Amino acid sequence: MAFVLIIHDYDCNFVAIMKKSLILVTNDDGLFAPGIKALVEVAKKFGEVVVVAPDSPQSGQGHAITIESPLRLKKIHFMEGVEAYECNGTPVDCVKLGKHVLLKDRKIDLCVSGINHGSNAAINIIYSGTMSAAKEASLEGIPSIGFSLLDYSFDADFEPSKIIAENLIEYILKKGMEHGSLLNVNIPKLKLADIKGMKVCRQGNARWVEEFKEGMDPRGQKYYWLTGKFINEDEGKDTDVWALDNGYVSIVPSDHDLTLYKAIPTLASLEKLNIHAG
Amino acid sequence: MAFVLIIHDYDCNFVAIMKKSLILVTNDDGLFAPGIKALVEVAKKFGEVVVVAPDSPQSGQGHAITIESPLRLKKIHFMEGVEAYECNGTPVDCVKLGKHVLLKDRKIDLCVSGINHGSNAAINIIYSGTMSAAKEASLEGIPSIGFSLLDYSFDADFEPSKIIAENLIEYILKKGMEHGSLLNVNIPKLKLADIKGMKVCRQGNARWVEEFKEGMDPRGQKYYWLTGKFINEDEGKDTDVWALDNGYVSIVPSDHDLTLYKAIPTLASLEKLNIHAG
Repeated sequence: MAFVLIIHDYDCNFVAIMKKSLILVTNDDGLFAPGIKALVEVAKKFGEVVVVAPDSPQSGQGHAITIESPLRLKKIHFMEGVEAYECNGTPVDCVKLGKHVLLKDRKIDLCVSGINHGSNAAINIIYSGTMSAAKEASLEGIPSIGFSLLDYSFDADFEPSKIIAENLIEYILKKGMEHGSLLNVNIPKLKLADIKGMKVCRQGNARWVEEFKEGMDPRGQKYYWLTGKFINEDEGKDTDVWALDNGYVSIVPSDHDLTLYKAIPTLASLEKLNIHAG
Repeated sequence: MAFVLIIHDYDCNFVAIMKKSLILVTNDDGLFAPGIKALVEVAKKFGEVVVVAPDSPQSGQGHAITIESPLRLKKIHFMEGVEAYECNGTPVDCVKLGKHVLLKDRKIDLCVSGINHGSNAAINIIYSGTMSAAKEASLEGIPSIGFSLLDYSFDADFEPSKIIAENLIEYILKKGMEHGSLLNVNIPKLKLADIKGMKVCRQGNARWVEEFKEGMDPRGQKYYWLTGKFINEDEGKDTDVWALDNGYVSIVPSDHDLTLYKAIPTLASLEKLNIHAG
């Protein structure tokens, strides 16, 4: 089967003919979240969409994977013309099953994750199930974009985010990425007219300052419940946090290499420790 | 109370007097794992040790945190002179509770995580509960070391690892780290005499090639169980994978910034997309 997609620019000038793309969609909130519905509606415009999402909310799951128990996939009627599955695992498990079971011998052109309800800017990238799913796909060499809207509400307005997502998906499908294959995209809670544009940024050095609310359960046992405040300690104007605070969509090209290169020479004297002397 | 520790070098020459250190110990395998017992035995030599470990194995938990349910701590008799707790959360939760509940107003000098049974070299750092616990402590500004031994066996010989850990803990407590606060340490499965030394490395570009074993459960439902092979595609001799393959302990100074800096200029044309044209 030969599918084609005809691309026009905003003035309706013909730009290109593309093969219909194969897009894997996932998230960390499951299929009931409005954010994934919005994202699938956009992805559908570019080709064939397969959705694999967790069967329960998986916020804060980070890069967790399921190794001690079996995983299951359940086919769900989700949206006309879209193949959708629920999975009992984490967001990363969803991507692994999409790639290695459901779409085993096919080339996935793009993985999109989200649209998350709430920010995944700055350090949130390491806690986020949405971003870990996108990260997992990019580890497999699949171009991947994680989308998050800075609005926790179930009734959040996803219309501006849909336009942002459409622009970015079109760009990446057409141009690819010269370096790496992962974008962390965060969208401010603003009307489209008030969004100033998109900024390509670095990950801001902002973090959570945490607290635990202590309580007593009905059986008299003490418990602790995580809460916290997000604090920006980074004054740079090239960060995702700055972009979002100033009305821009933030786009952080991201990777999987956590090496702190500048520390390598400063630790050289470690290599001289004589471990055989004891 | 003033505790002091007198440091000698290997020839028993006096080196320094240190305040007794406060060390938080955790892992992802729980208190029954021999690896954490070995690590606590070493940490005890340097001062006061508080242990917070998951109450069930949490391998592959990555940077997962518990936000939808309460956490509990249970005091456990673990080892003479050591305060130890089991927690019903993830490894990252253990560190957060250690820092913000148990040791709330105290300065933690070092966090050590492990000793993990099995490698956390290369990309394993993002899946590993052991390394995520150390990463969480380093996010809080606590110098942190994650230790892993390349031996999955419950009967693994931790004696060489204990000597490596003692050398590293002493070095970091004495010298600190000039850049960052996180080390990923992997130890080859060798006798101490056969370990060539320590190498400060970058994270190797090795990854898992995955497969799912399909099966049918007793109720006739299909399941998938994750399995995979670790593949090294990186020919560099400066990686952790190379060091381990060649008989060295690998030490990768690590960070939390996932920005792929070289991709920022190459994505600049994204900023020119007109999102208001639609």
